Amino acid sequence: MTTAPIPAAPRWLTDEEQRTWQAYLHATTLLEDHLDRQLQRDAGMPHIYYGLLVLLSEAPHRRMRMTQLAMQAKITRSRLSHAVARLERSGWVRRQNCPSDRRGQLACLTDEGYEVLTRTAPGHVAAVRQALLDRLSPEQQKTLGEIMRIVAEGLQPKEAGADLPWLR
Amino acid sequence: MTTAPIPAAPRWLTDEEQRTWQAYLHATTLLEDHLDRQLQRDAGMPHIYYGLLVLLSEAPHRRMRMTQLAMQAKITRSRLSHAVARLERSGWVRRQNCPSDRRGQLACLTDEGYEVLTRTAPGHVAAVRQALLDRLSPEQQKTLGEIMRIVAEGLQPKEAGADLPWLR
Repeated sequence: MTTAPIPAAPRWLTDEEQRTWQAYLHATTLLEDHLDRQLQRDAGMPHIYYGLLVLLSEAPHRRMRMTQLAMQAKITRSRLSHAVARLERSGWVRRQNCPSDRRGQLACLTDEGYEVLTRTAPGHVAAVRQALLDRLSPEQQKTLGEIMRIVAEGLQPKEAGADLPWLR
Repeated sequence: MTTAPIPAAPRWLTDEEQRTWQAYLHATTLLEDHLDRQLQRDAGMPHIYYGLLVLLSEAPHRRMRMTQLAMQAKITRSRLSHAVARLERSGWVRRQNCPSDRRGQLACLTDEGYEVLTRTAPGHVAAVRQALLDRLSPEQQKTLGEIMRIVAEGLQPKEAGADLPWLR
């Protein structure tokens, strides 16, 4: 039985890989900036807050445990707390103690929050289409979905002690 | 000559588009968090600072005008100023007045900055490979590069007055 030698040098990116990685960094940075601007202009909130309102709007009774919301948004609990505090000041979210768990807290979408989401969604969907989806062929869209699912799954290992944002 | 009617309702995402967009948001959020953690742990800096050091290391004389650096990093000038001030305090970057332009300023990579980059690069490349590139088939890598170039180009229109981060 032989074992592979430990490589002496790092496996640097090839020119092609380098170009792909640069394009990834450029596109994701620009798209996040673009959607943040669009949402700040049209609804006075950054992209991440909008995503939280969407998640709450899709949950039963339009509410979710804070820990669950952090997991679904893929962010840390401290980042979520900060965002929810701001959304509460805007009147779009309300925090409630969880009836079944004294230590748990629920984030609830208010009627005002639902209203701002309903008003903002058409413009936001149009921005996502215009900047991303409508620029791709059906084949490219399909491959993009496959790639992003592979990456997202790889970064959420099931084992205990995994360094996941919402567990910090 | 006929014109298309103005659509009465927004073109909502189909279920498939919705899944692709969710996967994109999850993967990009998790990957940014992952690389930030890796670089904070190994070099005490966030991903965006590392990217600035890389850009400077590849420039002639390891220096670049601030406006050019913001453009290449795809970020706003105020975000760049903040980052460069922090990098200066770490001793990794030095600001210099531009010899050919009184109002211009150059960001220069210091020897310490080059050293930290050299020490950090192998671990960072390994993280990018492990989380993204090595998980994809050659065909998926190729398509990812194509998609990201389409998106990045679409978000950097050539016309005057375009709302680009580094022009704000």
